[in-house]
Amino acid sequence: MGDYDPATFEGLRFLDATHAFRDGADSPSDYLERCIETIETREPVVQAFAALNYDGAREAAEASSARWRDGKPLSPIDGLPIGIKDLLETKDMPTEHGCAAYTGHFPKRDNAAVWALREAGAVIVGKTVTAELGGVEPGPTTNPWDTTRTPGGSSSGSAAAVAAGMLPAAIGTQVGGSIIRPAAFCGNIALKPSQGGINRGERQATSMSTHGVHANSIEDMWQVAIEIAKRVGGDRGYPGLQGPDKVPDAVRPTRIAVLRTEGWGSADETTRAAFENILDQLREAGVTLLTGEDHPLIETLELSIREARRVGGYITIWENRWAQRNLINEYPEGVSARAQRSVELAETLSPDDYRALLVEREVAQAAHAAVASIVDASILLSCTGPAPVWQGDIEGEPPVRAPTGDAVFNMPSSMLFAPAVTMPLLGIGGLPVGIQLMGQPQDDAKITALARWVLGHLSPVIA
Amino acid sequence: MGDYDPATFEGLRFLDATHAFRDGADSPSDYLERCIETIETREPVVQAFAALNYDGAREAAEASSARWRDGKPLSPIDGLPIGIKDLLETKDMPTEHGCAAYTGHFPKRDNAAVWALREAGAVIVGKTVTAELGGVEPGPTTNPWDTTRTPGGSSSGSAAAVAAGMLPAAIGTQVGGSIIRPAAFCGNIALKPSQGGINRGERQATSMSTHGVHANSIEDMWQVAIEIAKRVGGDRGYPGLQGPDKVPDAVRPTRIAVLRTEGWGSADETTRAAFENILDQLREAGVTLLTGEDHPLIETLELSIREARRVGGYITIWENRWAQRNLINEYPEGVSARAQRSVELAETLSPDDYRALLVEREVAQAAHAAVASIVDASILLSCTGPAPVWQGDIEGEPPVRAPTGDAVFNMPSSMLFAPAVTMPLLGIGGLPVGIQLMGQPQDDAKITALARWVLGHLSPVIA
Repeated sequence: MGDYDPATFEGLRFLDATHAFRDGADSPSDYLERCIETIETREPVVQAFAALNYDGAREAAEASSARWRDGKPLSPIDGLPIGIKDLLETKDMPTEHGCAAYTGHFPKRDNAAVWALREAGAVIVGKTVTAELGGVEPGPTTNPWDTTRTPGGSSSGSAAAVAAGMLPAAIGTQVGGSIIRPAAFCGNIALKPSQGGINRGERQATSMSTHGVHANSIEDMWQVAIEIAKRVGGDRGYPGLQGPDKVPDAVRPTRIAVLRTEGWGSADETTRAAFENILDQLREAGVTLLTGEDHPLIETLELSIREARRVGGYITIWENRWAQRNLINEYPEGVSARAQRSVELAETLSPDDYRALLVEREVAQAAHAAVASIVDASILLSCTGPAPVWQGDIEGEPPVRAPTGDAVFNMPSSMLFAPAVTMPLLGIGGLPVGIQLMGQPQDDAKITALARWVLGHLSPVIA
Repeated sequence: MGDYDPATFEGLRFLDATHAFRDGADSPSDYLERCIETIETREPVVQAFAALNYDGAREAAEASSARWRDGKPLSPIDGLPIGIKDLLETKDMPTEHGCAAYTGHFPKRDNAAVWALREAGAVIVGKTVTAELGGVEPGPTTNPWDTTRTPGGSSSGSAAAVAAGMLPAAIGTQVGGSIIRPAAFCGNIALKPSQGGINRGERQATSMSTHGVHANSIEDMWQVAIEIAKRVGGDRGYPGLQGPDKVPDAVRPTRIAVLRTEGWGSADETTRAAFENILDQLREAGVTLLTGEDHPLIETLELSIREARRVGGYITIWENRWAQRNLINEYPEGVSARAQRSVELAETLSPDDYRALLVEREVAQAAHAAVASIVDASILLSCTGPAPVWQGDIEGEPPVRAPTGDAVFNMPSSMLFAPAVTMPLLGIGGLPVGIQLMGQPQDDAKITALARWVLGHLSPVIA
């Protein structure tokens, strides 16, 4: 097991460091060199990166250093070294989607969010490993807290790079559980924004896909998200993330819904007990907690998402069906058996099956909207327990179903189009486990404020 | 001027011809050869195609002929030769987007709609010319009724190929006016579906983009649309086009809203008078017509869309901003000055400007929803008059603002996410002019039924 301690782990932070950029004691270039040193040390085992561009990063950091020296940073994240999940296009590095069929794929374009990061002065250091096509076939990344375990997926490299102190922040994406789950397994703080919160640019992947931010502090997390949204807004047709220019002030929640959801039964006992400890602390702090037994609207919500994993999963494989079949047709050997099976499964669905799934999703969204007036947010585990062991499928045995972990606690926020912030509040057997706050769509700033209060007032639980 | 007569023009149709496929008097292969003969004759002047694949089409038609001989066609459109707008990817032909920067661009993929067409047995004959990037910089296509005039854009080649009898149907796309306007200028019947009606596959271009169908009969138009939707459904997150397996029965409208909208003032007098003649015929047939003067809700709707062109135009350039800037950065000489200017204009907008535009659009959608209970549909011109003359910009003079025609009558259905069917009811100076019926979102089958009644009961007007 690992030696993760949520009470003492600090992680690499950025905004704190910029004070020293102002007085010249430190600089973005020096900060970057420290990141590079950590990458060089840890990357051989962690394997967080699909590509690295030290030359480009050093050049960007030098320009940033000059701006800070002149007292004219482009934004509070000017000089922030960041990793970009390898599903997003970057003009200076390949975009290989964790998929053999995309080997060498190198469109010379910046995703809208990457564009915004460069405009804000951020330093694009590398492309972080994604599970194949954002799905479940794992990449090479290991969990920085225990190399026998998955870092979670599909934003595996983003979560691991931030946890390993290689970078203070990284961009992930989520359709099912691909931001919150790996962040929770690695001990990140992360935001999965409201649907449409951050402009996905050319990557209008699926109806539940979002770009989000992994970081080691809620201040860094918010700052990266808002600097992107200020420059490129949200997805087409969406208002996009809005909120204050700096991390919102902490706000004590008044009433919170406790969602145990379909995953509760598969969470391990130690993790469940640790979660209950956090709930006790909330109650002691005067927060009213409501469960499905306390209020029929919360029960209705829980019932509406009790098959979130099935609904979200089937919606997503349907939406990926043609793009992925085209890919398989062109590169029969270039796509994993796991991905091929999900396309075959999608091909058993009809348009009417898909329509029915959309209605299930809309019903759940209506049930979620109905709790807006009775609670400030919902709280739930971010994962079923510590990251599972993953060292590859075993020859002769059926492939492991969820090698990057179970998305059962993540599909709800995805299918509800709801913002979620995962907080590294638990250390279970020396490994991180996250707890998330989930808000109403467009409540990104509000749940960030609530999460900031929780992080500042509750004691992490070690079990 | 041209010699178009809406009362006598028949155009090339497909479903009628399939009876002879059953009894062996004709075959998809023979039908295709007649299309190819017309293409060979007319293409040198009309220039409807960006690419042609006779070999592939002949092979597909032979397979279809065998299926019809065996009495086992894959669908009613098995063997239908069709053109695909060159914005949609096809695995057997390049996809060049009418843009020099995409010269030779050849992804080996089928767009979801193309996929569905092949599954239904349709014969993909060629890629039809699009105005550059689906915008306003014209391609080489001329109007089949008068070579000095634009065929309209951006689905220029689709509209012209169908009008010239080269093909019985073609796929177009619309963001502003790109299906209805060229169809109206060329004398097609065409469907711009409800937003999300037909699965755009990888081409999740903008929040107002739809795939639609150009044809010479409403039966062919509907059949192509529903065969696609039955196989691949709508866009991600949308229910997609639904309706009967064959063209809906004609339905006499009871009450129709007459929308004169912002374009009315720029429509020419002859066209306006001809439109009024159509309205008179509707009244004589017992249809109640309501204008903004008759009902405050219709006035509210007209007010809400009085700047549709500005709202829709700005939303679209914002949404295309990053993709097009990336393209310009990579190929500075590969993108027209017109497209470059629209990106520059987009770069003067902020995320808040975009949010405000979305709110304007939502307000208009609410105003449109409010008329659902008082009228069956709305009727309006499809264009301001016959296709304008277009033979290129004049050296030394400022570029023509709308070389493919004005989208002023088309932005309403686009921004309202509303289905529209254009009907070739007018011949103005020997050139086609269309009139459209617009319905509530998801009323595609209903307005097709109403349009079928109009086409069957009113006399075209020649002026």
